[in-house]
Amino acid sequence: MAESALTVCIVGLGLMGGSLALALRSDASRSNVPAFRAKRILGVSRSAETLNAALAAGALDAGTTDLAAGVARADVIVLATPVRTILHLLPEVGRHARPGALVMDMGSSKAQICAAMADLPAGLEPVGSHPMCGKETAGFAAAEANLYRGRPFVLCPLQRTAPETLETARSLALAVGGRPMVVDPGMHDRAVAAISHLPYAAAATLVRAVDTSGDELAWALAASGFRDTTRVAASDVDMMLDTLLTNRVAVLDWLDAFSDQLAVLRAALADEDEAGLRGQLAAAQARRAGMRF
Amino acid sequence: MAESALTVCIVGLGLMGGSLALALRSDASRSNVPAFRAKRILGVSRSAETLNAALAAGALDAGTTDLAAGVARADVIVLATPVRTILHLLPEVGRHARPGALVMDMGSSKAQICAAMADLPAGLEPVGSHPMCGKETAGFAAAEANLYRGRPFVLCPLQRTAPETLETARSLALAVGGRPMVVDPGMHDRAVAAISHLPYAAAATLVRAVDTSGDELAWALAASGFRDTTRVAASDVDMMLDTLLTNRVAVLDWLDAFSDQLAVLRAALADEDEAGLRGQLAAAQARRAGMRF
Repeated sequence: MAESALTVCIVGLGLMGGSLALALRSDASRSNVPAFRAKRILGVSRSAETLNAALAAGALDAGTTDLAAGVARADVIVLATPVRTILHLLPEVGRHARPGALVMDMGSSKAQICAAMADLPAGLEPVGSHPMCGKETAGFAAAEANLYRGRPFVLCPLQRTAPETLETARSLALAVGGRPMVVDPGMHDRAVAAISHLPYAAAATLVRAVDTSGDELAWALAASGFRDTTRVAASDVDMMLDTLLTNRVAVLDWLDAFSDQLAVLRAALADEDEAGLRGQLAAAQARRAGMRF
Repeated sequence: MAESALTVCIVGLGLMGGSLALALRSDASRSNVPAFRAKRILGVSRSAETLNAALAAGALDAGTTDLAAGVARADVIVLATPVRTILHLLPEVGRHARPGALVMDMGSSKAQICAAMADLPAGLEPVGSHPMCGKETAGFAAAEANLYRGRPFVLCPLQRTAPETLETARSLALAVGGRPMVVDPGMHDRAVAAISHLPYAAAATLVRAVDTSGDELAWALAASGFRDTTRVAASDVDMMLDTLLTNRVAVLDWLDAFSDQLAVLRAALADEDEAGLRGQLAAAQARRAGMRF
């Protein structure tokens, strides 16, 4: 028996949206989740060039630069743009999406997005979402079908979210190889501020500290430690600016916690307190060496 | 015509010393530098187990737990232990090394080591050295023949160092695939504080900040960004403790420069100064994206 084709509309075809399209088109997705076995993938981008690249890569069934036309035809809408663009697009999505459509997103902070989703017209079915993966390279050219594989895929249902809507969102996460996790938006934002937004701020600050010093020998000697510690500083600026500004309170709290710990380390080094310094470094070493990714 | 065999004695067979032995034994080393084409490699370790592992891996011609016996037979002595162990061993090396022996090291800071090398008996030929590579995994099990390939290999000649001694040190760097660079010890220490010791302090502090918060969700959501930004926090504690304590003044300076830049970023975020924040993030992005490793 033929299954009816679900139409998925992905708005924004950068690293995250492009990878979602490729993942949904992959053989793995065709076999593992019945709800997403037969689907049409529609791409929306401001850029005709990006649409052409995604079509040429076989990531889409069709593409359009017209948001209203795209979302009007979709069963599932996924907003895959920087957070403030998502906040800006949600009212327009609300005007054009058809009743019963699932509205998801891939934004890096969730509290403001979930609050805006709560204002969508009745009949639409929103679920905030955030797959925990990324790369420091942006754009469709960096997209890959395996980006979500094995990674936590956070789902933030709203009070209005029906159980069957959450189930469809979970199926989409599974279809791309992710590990769905239901999390409260505020707890999500505090946790990702710790393990994503703070490390980004630290990495950008490391680069700035060396750059503003004018020490050219430092750049010449930089090795794998500096490479990896600062990798995320090369992330897309628009995306990270939106992320920091929409998760400002949590990021400021973590910046303060980080500064406090840095001051403890500095004091131990300044005082040549070898036992104290060893204790801090050994605790970090044990925790980090025990992590599995 | 047979070449006379140069005897290289490597003291400490962890990641750095073990990799040096493997690199000197590799086919590449046999072919590219005449001075090191024929050589005997002697390993010194406190641990019989490590010596057996290195012998079993074919990294050594012979091994001993007796430092005096090992260095007494060597033309080239390479101290590959944490910095303060090098400082502790140098006088004993001075008592047992034979006249004319080249004394090198692989310590992560250079000013204190070069100062201690200056006190070696006349007749010994010291050159401070530091290859710019490493991993967060320690010990002979982590050693690899390609560790030095393509990496800067810093050489810090002393005032007493003869040109031909420096040439032999340069040949050793080339024999393992490194790129020899002659650098002043103080400039080296300031530069590596920026691109190695400060990033390590930041990485350890990131882990400590999250660890002491008790936010378990954060660990569950940690992805590739956190993994890479904190990778070096898993480095060997003894090595890094020695490195920070023997490069204390430069590290404290860089910690202060880092804290100053972090405060600038925090202020822009706290004030919702979007233009200011964007300027900082874009400058870091451009600099980091332009780096080649």
